[in-house]
Amino acid sequence: MNSVNLAKQKVLIFGGLGFIGSNLAHALVKKGAEVTVYDGLLPGYGGNLFNVKDIEKDVKVIQKDIRDKAALEKAVKGQNLIFNFAAQVSYIDSLKDPYADLDINVRGHLMLMEACRALNREARVFFASSRMVYGRNTQDKVPETVIPKPLNMYGIHKLACEHYMELYNREFKIPAVAIRIMNPYGPRQQMLHSKYSLVGWFIRQAMEDKEIKIFGDGLQKRDYLYIDDLVNGFVAVAEKDIRNFECFNIGTGEGKPFRDMVQSVVKAVGKGKVTFVEWPKDYEMIETGSFVADTQKLTDLTGWKPEVFLDDGIRRTYEYYRENHKNYWMS
Amino acid sequence: MNSVNLAKQKVLIFGGLGFIGSNLAHALVKKGAEVTVYDGLLPGYGGNLFNVKDIEKDVKVIQKDIRDKAALEKAVKGQNLIFNFAAQVSYIDSLKDPYADLDINVRGHLMLMEACRALNREARVFFASSRMVYGRNTQDKVPETVIPKPLNMYGIHKLACEHYMELYNREFKIPAVAIRIMNPYGPRQQMLHSKYSLVGWFIRQAMEDKEIKIFGDGLQKRDYLYIDDLVNGFVAVAEKDIRNFECFNIGTGEGKPFRDMVQSVVKAVGKGKVTFVEWPKDYEMIETGSFVADTQKLTDLTGWKPEVFLDDGIRRTYEYYRENHKNYWMS
Repeated sequence: MNSVNLAKQKVLIFGGLGFIGSNLAHALVKKGAEVTVYDGLLPGYGGNLFNVKDIEKDVKVIQKDIRDKAALEKAVKGQNLIFNFAAQVSYIDSLKDPYADLDINVRGHLMLMEACRALNREARVFFASSRMVYGRNTQDKVPETVIPKPLNMYGIHKLACEHYMELYNREFKIPAVAIRIMNPYGPRQQMLHSKYSLVGWFIRQAMEDKEIKIFGDGLQKRDYLYIDDLVNGFVAVAEKDIRNFECFNIGTGEGKPFRDMVQSVVKAVGKGKVTFVEWPKDYEMIETGSFVADTQKLTDLTGWKPEVFLDDGIRRTYEYYRENHKNYWMS
Repeated sequence: MNSVNLAKQKVLIFGGLGFIGSNLAHALVKKGAEVTVYDGLLPGYGGNLFNVKDIEKDVKVIQKDIRDKAALEKAVKGQNLIFNFAAQVSYIDSLKDPYADLDINVRGHLMLMEACRALNREARVFFASSRMVYGRNTQDKVPETVIPKPLNMYGIHKLACEHYMELYNREFKIPAVAIRIMNPYGPRQQMLHSKYSLVGWFIRQAMEDKEIKIFGDGLQKRDYLYIDDLVNGFVAVAEKDIRNFECFNIGTGEGKPFRDMVQSVVKAVGKGKVTFVEWPKDYEMIETGSFVADTQKLTDLTGWKPEVFLDDGIRRTYEYYRENHKNYWMS
């Protein structure tokens, strides 16, 4: 497959002020791409202007909602690569307010695909999908080929978006890649609530010397992926000239018990108390059991491999928030 | 599994003035159920007050959109069985105006599930799903267990609704059944355009002695199901006290070449000219190839079997429109 030099490529990142989007913006600026970040800064989600502070001269920022058709269409024109991270990101909230999840995560992505169909079929579109499309694990390492059986609204909607991309690729030849992300953590994620990425939340709890609660025995395994590794995976895929629809898992391929992650946090921060409590009712039913991704497909295509071990990634994350916490929470 | 006597059961049918909904209303009235039909009569779709003319004293009619939250919630209360046929029903239109399909077929069904969650978790909910969730056939007779790979917006959205039902069953214990319908035909379908069920449209074309176009060689097989058989299948499933989420195919289990169906129409009506033309561009890409359902799961549970052969069903359909055509189209 042909390789793509990202230098001078025009790149548009929806949700570009959020956790993954802003980290990707940094990586693409380094590659010499012309980066535009587009973010609605919806309250309660991850958008934060501080996330692009140190590259503010290198990126164009559009503060608009992805569902603003005029702004969306204007932004999409002339782009070479388009990444969509604009989303409601809590699987807990997705069932509390399913209409918000449907509107932002499904209709928003549909509007993006429709804008490409109307104005820019050449752009390669990349979508942040999730391990949540799979539902419960069925094997040690879950490959992309198993039947998706999403257990929550968030996963149902991510899967519908993948289907849109496959459809728009087949019908309109829009190159489309969905990346199913395991458990990402690292600098630049929101730290205001615990509804997305517990690693960050626990780091804050530890920094404030609070109680960190582990639900159940904490032995369920998760595939924690450091943000730099995640971003490198997106970049590696973007550097391949994929023209059809493809779907990739991204994760370390290694399961870490939840309680080990918590111990790493406490060790890195040097504070915090760990307690074990019962599963809350609204988490229990959608708990997926241990979940580890088979990431062979991504590695085979691009050579990508994760490089940051959990202890190291947590330490780096803590160091980031130690320096910058005032830009993420009041205290 | 326990059986349910439908007499005196309170039944609510969304899309109850349309093709399948109104035929089901007739069958349930005969069973002694207390039937309410709820229909938004959206222009261009299948709703037609004439469809319940002969049972107008036996059913309550609510002319409201399923997305009218207040009307929806009022209607849902106290019902024992709820069927949802309220939908945009053209897979061609689903890609021309994906937002309408998303709003009616996905958000509408989500609103129904949310209304049940809030006000009536005891009601058993039945959903009209479609063979379109499967996409292209992968084997001679397609069972419910294959990986769904929808090829069009309509199928993507039907699948998302099935996932909603599975979720609402698991989380809120709402009994939920999705029935994947093959190619239904028969009395009471709309006859104004060709975008849904070509059998009816071809009957009209033949009655008007017009040209009937077969795309390609017409050898692709379809699983044509007469409406009475389809309705009997819904009734048979409703008579079983299913409490979890289940999904059933319904079809004859026999593939008939498209051109044979056309010949049956011309024979029954005694008029019409058949010509062979190229596939139009917007059909071709989403054509599924021959498609026949494996309906063993439904038969195993209920004993249901189709009873009406294609020639007979087409003759009965023609006779219905010969008597009643003024209520379906001007001419």
